Amino acid sequence: MTPSDPRPTGSATTLSVRRVGIDTWRENVAYLRRDCPVVRAEGFQALAKVEVAATGTSILAVLNVVDDPQLLGPCDLGLSEEAFARLAVTEGAAVHIAHAEPPASIGALRRRIGGQRLSAADLKAIVADIAARRYSKIELAAFVVATSQIALDRDEVLWLTQAMAAVGHRLDWGDIDGGGPIVDKHCIGGLAGNRTSMIVVPIVAAHAARAGLLMPKTSSRAITSPAGTADTMECLARVELSLEQMRAVVHAQHGCLAWGGRAALSPADDVLISVSRPLSLDSPALMVASILSKKLAAGATHLVLDIPLGPTAKVRTRADADRLAALFDYVGGQLGITLATLITDGSQPIGRGIGPALEARDVMQVLHRHPAAPADLRDKSLMLAGRVIEFDPAVTPGSGAARARALLDSGAALVKMEAIIDAQGRHPFDWRAPPLGALSMTIPADRDGVVQAIDNERIARIARLAGAPKARGAGIDLLHKVGDAVQRGAALYRIHAASDAELDFAAQVALRDSAYRIESGAMTPDAHAAASAADSVDRNN
Amino acid sequence: MTPSDPRPTGSATTLSVRRVGIDTWRENVAYLRRDCPVVRAEGFQALAKVEVAATGTSILAVLNVVDDPQLLGPCDLGLSEEAFARLAVTEGAAVHIAHAEPPASIGALRRRIGGQRLSAADLKAIVADIAARRYSKIELAAFVVATSQIALDRDEVLWLTQAMAAVGHRLDWGDIDGGGPIVDKHCIGGLAGNRTSMIVVPIVAAHAARAGLLMPKTSSRAITSPAGTADTMECLARVELSLEQMRAVVHAQHGCLAWGGRAALSPADDVLISVSRPLSLDSPALMVASILSKKLAAGATHLVLDIPLGPTAKVRTRADADRLAALFDYVGGQLGITLATLITDGSQPIGRGIGPALEARDVMQVLHRHPAAPADLRDKSLMLAGRVIEFDPAVTPGSGAARARALLDSGAALVKMEAIIDAQGRHPFDWRAPPLGALSMTIPADRDGVVQAIDNERIARIARLAGAPKARGAGIDLLHKVGDAVQRGAALYRIHAASDAELDFAAQVALRDSAYRIESGAMTPDAHAAASAADSVDRNN
Repeated sequence: MTPSDPRPTGSATTLSVRRVGIDTWRENVAYLRRDCPVVRAEGFQALAKVEVAATGTSILAVLNVVDDPQLLGPCDLGLSEEAFARLAVTEGAAVHIAHAEPPASIGALRRRIGGQRLSAADLKAIVADIAARRYSKIELAAFVVATSQIALDRDEVLWLTQAMAAVGHRLDWGDIDGGGPIVDKHCIGGLAGNRTSMIVVPIVAAHAARAGLLMPKTSSRAITSPAGTADTMECLARVELSLEQMRAVVHAQHGCLAWGGRAALSPADDVLISVSRPLSLDSPALMVASILSKKLAAGATHLVLDIPLGPTAKVRTRADADRLAALFDYVGGQLGITLATLITDGSQPIGRGIGPALEARDVMQVLHRHPAAPADLRDKSLMLAGRVIEFDPAVTPGSGAARARALLDSGAALVKMEAIIDAQGRHPFDWRAPPLGALSMTIPADRDGVVQAIDNERIARIARLAGAPKARGAGIDLLHKVGDAVQRGAALYRIHAASDAELDFAAQVALRDSAYRIESGAMTPDAHAAASAADSVDRNN
Repeated sequence: MTPSDPRPTGSATTLSVRRVGIDTWRENVAYLRRDCPVVRAEGFQALAKVEVAATGTSILAVLNVVDDPQLLGPCDLGLSEEAFARLAVTEGAAVHIAHAEPPASIGALRRRIGGQRLSAADLKAIVADIAARRYSKIELAAFVVATSQIALDRDEVLWLTQAMAAVGHRLDWGDIDGGGPIVDKHCIGGLAGNRTSMIVVPIVAAHAARAGLLMPKTSSRAITSPAGTADTMECLARVELSLEQMRAVVHAQHGCLAWGGRAALSPADDVLISVSRPLSLDSPALMVASILSKKLAAGATHLVLDIPLGPTAKVRTRADADRLAALFDYVGGQLGITLATLITDGSQPIGRGIGPALEARDVMQVLHRHPAAPADLRDKSLMLAGRVIEFDPAVTPGSGAARARALLDSGAALVKMEAIIDAQGRHPFDWRAPPLGALSMTIPADRDGVVQAIDNERIARIARLAGAPKARGAGIDLLHKVGDAVQRGAALYRIHAASDAELDFAAQVALRDSAYRIESGAMTPDAHAAASAADSVDRNN
């Protein structure tokens, strides 16, 4: 370039793209050598936001500066695994890099930080940028906090939900089984065990054989819990179904239990979770938008929503539960989803097993009407299934639970479950002798008394340390529940693990604090009240 | 471990530490192979927070999962550069890794997100954790937003400031020159050029020879601007002084112009900046805490604070400027710092040069009383120096500016500057022929008219793209300022760069929008009003 000769320039320095085998979760990271001519030229420094452009495609990424000459060549541009996949070019392809203009919606984010309300258009732009991975972790965290400290109002939540559903893939069930309700059941989470969906779906699908409804259930894998429904169902059957496979199962069986990740129902939600989880920030607004955007995208017309209430559940006061339920009702109503919101007992885990194989065993015990089947899991599943069945216009309100019980007791639900398993692709699993981690140890009570409460968060953490959900047979088998009298030294639960190191990690935490609150004498009136007050309050009946 | 044999365990799996040559700025990142036994055992996933412990030392880090077998061995634990330096062990040392308990202060952060006020103890704990690098980028962003959306009240700002100063190194000047004021001058930033400190310090130090005051000025390097005072001074002299060297300079010359980074005055601020800058979030609370914590740690007793006001400055309305000044006054007062807060004209850059060598040239032109010296830089420096001199109890209020002018015009300030340069360690620099980037081009006016405004943000961005501050001779030389009449095609400014690529990047942006607002006819009354209304309002006189 001649000095003093202004000319427009369209091209920056060309680099050669390399896949760097580093998983940075949902954040695109670009790696450049410190001695790369482009780094010097642009005055790049670590954490700068850059745009990486190849022919016909570009991504935004955060920069990490590399000093190790073995990692990259000086004219290489490395990309973290997800970023490389997203740019979708071959290794060695020529790329250009430039300082990124901030995503267009950052202006709206900054206005929200400044306390202003967002419009539907603002939220649409923000969600589109988030889904396209244009936000850095710092910007995502800013969005999550800026929509929590001054909470989104209910219309902002509605717009956020619509925007999140709009960037996702939509499922349409219109052509299967003429126009009955597409029903679903969802729990806001936070309760260990609680694997009701795998009992509710076969019951409802068994009922559906005579009704017009469909229950194409998509579930998530565990993110911070010891097992998701998808992880647990995967002990019994294939869950990573293509849309065509899912449709075939639903067509034949009126229901399925598939992993929802394949469907990409709410890609912006996947990204937001990558920062809200590390912050343990479950704001009502984001919870409602996350759940209902997925239901909307999945085509649900009717939803039973389970909100567990308890001192270690996600929702801890009755007032918070009511506010959350009201927000779900408003947004669901505006979206045209018929909602039945239930506030349930969240004072302890539901069922005995915590971890994929242990929970699958509980589920099969209930479906097989085995004498050892956990009664709380059975009762809660029947209540929820009954409520779903009442979405069938042919069913008299209040008679759903009895219908659910009849389908379970007759064995019809079990037959349906076996049919769904076969339709999805059976995995070998002996529920009478489930494949649990070979190593185990029990955790003893440290005093005589009655179990008052079991800390959901702590017990889940111990199960994760034991290896769940990655080690399918790892987890916790609860030997006592709230209300049981125990003696000092009695085994409260058994930890299962696949390796010494796993057992070791879990044991360290469990022996420091077992997660059980045990008090001498009978159960305190307080604990009784808490456990029963929240028991299955159906807000809509 | 024997099944069912509970025993307390103190040790986790041992890994071997490796330095990974990746600069992740202020965030500790740990790299582990996906097939590392510990990753499987603990169910680690990318972005998990882990504690890395070696004998007698430990750090918190965020996990990145590595799939590339060449980067690390399966039993290696890699650390990003700053994390490796922080753990301070040798490569190959044995380390243990465990799921990190969240830093103790995260509870307080979550309460603040929930809208609660923080106590002095809360802020002390948060700042201690931030300074020790226990917060991830996500947590830092959450803190920055949670203290902005619902702004910290003035006492929270005071406590934050005290906590930030408390974790920094304190400078004490008590033993030098019996007990006079320790004076300082600071601008909140955002204005291009504006290199007044390098003129104010020699004037005040020249005065100080007859008074008891000291001006031990510590400055920062540029973070997002094209030059910091430290970068500019480094053209003339060494700025990375040890505390002993700084004390020797101040003892002999009554003033210095040193880089503050070496002194680690406010390490928590350095960390917070790493997220607030990418978010472009300059909340008044964080600005006050950042500046005053450093002044407190640096031992300043008297401070002149420059708040530029203008449409592209950091502060854009008179009301915001007044609120910010009031917050500075309150917190400074509580800290025992005597503050003179000045609201100044921020409608365009101050001086001609933007970039280290160009700004150093401007400064030396003013000190040498060269006819081409930029008048606005001279006038503003005299005004600020005058206000600092009035901290001398022997100087009559209102007479400081005249005294400053006398010291400049007599050549005393220049003599003092040369003495400071020699004391710090002279670097060769010919201010009459400064070492500018060899490549240059001019940017032409796109119409006839009068310059109404120059966009500070945009002009700074162009100067950075040209290579400033890393390329010392790169930047922008303004050939016209606000109020000048220009003809279409006339050169508005010259871009200097050291390489084609740099010139190219800067030119692309400059030719799209020059940063100059030019309107036909005379200067609009609006622009006139804005430029003069803000001119040097001394709130304290």
